[in-house]
Amino acid sequence: MAPQEEMHTVRSFDSELDRLGQTIGRMGGLAESQLASALQALSQRDLDLASQVVTGDEAVDSVEDNINEQVVRLLALRQPMGEDLRVIMSSLKIASALERVADHAASTAHRVEILNKSAPIPAVKTVGRLGALVLSLLKEALDSYLHRDCDRALKVWQRDQEVDDLYSSLFRELLTYMMEDPRHITPCTHLMFIAKNLERVGDHATNLAEVTWFVVKGSQLKSGRPKSDDTYAIGTGSPEADA
Amino acid sequence: MAPQEEMHTVRSFDSELDRLGQTIGRMGGLAESQLASALQALSQRDLDLASQVVTGDEAVDSVEDNINEQVVRLLALRQPMGEDLRVIMSSLKIASALERVADHAASTAHRVEILNKSAPIPAVKTVGRLGALVLSLLKEALDSYLHRDCDRALKVWQRDQEVDDLYSSLFRELLTYMMEDPRHITPCTHLMFIAKNLERVGDHATNLAEVTWFVVKGSQLKSGRPKSDDTYAIGTGSPEADA
Repeated sequence: MAPQEEMHTVRSFDSELDRLGQTIGRMGGLAESQLASALQALSQRDLDLASQVVTGDEAVDSVEDNINEQVVRLLALRQPMGEDLRVIMSSLKIASALERVADHAASTAHRVEILNKSAPIPAVKTVGRLGALVLSLLKEALDSYLHRDCDRALKVWQRDQEVDDLYSSLFRELLTYMMEDPRHITPCTHLMFIAKNLERVGDHATNLAEVTWFVVKGSQLKSGRPKSDDTYAIGTGSPEADA
Repeated sequence: MAPQEEMHTVRSFDSELDRLGQTIGRMGGLAESQLASALQALSQRDLDLASQVVTGDEAVDSVEDNINEQVVRLLALRQPMGEDLRVIMSSLKIASALERVADHAASTAHRVEILNKSAPIPAVKTVGRLGALVLSLLKEALDSYLHRDCDRALKVWQRDQEVDDLYSSLFRELLTYMMEDPRHITPCTHLMFIAKNLERVGDHATNLAEVTWFVVKGSQLKSGRPKSDDTYAIGTGSPEADA
């Protein structure tokens, strides 16, 4: 290959990598916005907004397809190594995580319709707090990735326990409402599934932080974090008995 | 490259692809076995078995890491094209789906401990039926992939509605038990999350079927299947009112 041609190829490869990064940024923005709208629809009992979130999920899926195509083209046409290869491969994981985040947003939005059929449950406020927490972690995790900032990624990763703690206390709160009045059972069941969706978004933010660490350092950030759903331990009878 | 050397490279590439397929087969077998054990632990209230499933999850995760490493090596050392590239890229998706299946099995097993603290709920039998259905679909989807059998893959894909229907009827059944007696609320909540886990395994089986189709045909099998959780429509009050 002539030096000029080689230089051209390198420039083109770099610009394709940049494009991949921009597409990930765009997908991240879409997923964040879907989640924020779903949370707003939930707290304001806004059916129109909920319906927009459900319809908007397709756009996120199509960006994932686009990322997968870019990755396959980059891999088929080049032989990337080292950090380039890690960036390209991690794009698949990130796109898949963001697609799941958008699914969780759509699932939350779906349930707004059914929740609006019964009187508001005060625990919706706690669900909103959990939502705000995981949304901020998701933003932070995405920014860490896009800026290749391991310190910020580590902070996101360390905050997963906050999500688990808030989720557990919400789970207990919802059980209490259900036991108080059988009319609360159906709406609280849907709120429990929403809470679980949000807890999963927190897990995805943690995974994004791990991917950022891996891309920059080439090593795993895994040991030490207890990744768990603590509600497994919440038993029968009075929820306080298990506190 | 000398012809002999090239032949050697091709042979080695084929054997590496074979190895990747074998590793996927092994991971699939592990995930199936984890799910089968979790379902057995649930129906027989077997805490030892449940605990084995929880511990066994790590082995599945490590096979996923191994698949990811094989994929990166294959991509870095070769420039696969066409079906080879599709097989390699799809391995990442399949490994990720199987890892999630194993997570769902572990999550189910986790809840066995808490379920054993209260009297058995008859709906456990329906959960078992849903479990048997998704386990059979998972096996069938994996076999379709490993044999590159699009007809079998299509059949798995078409049966996703059965899973959704059974899941919806189980959801209603559990709501009824919860409304009957507040002591049923906590165990039924955990059974609902188990049911949701199993419904997700059904989705993963459907995804495996889609991947099989894509690997063999190079085109998407997507249109037409209504991929949904029908319980979004199950509302407040008497569950029969929403039937």
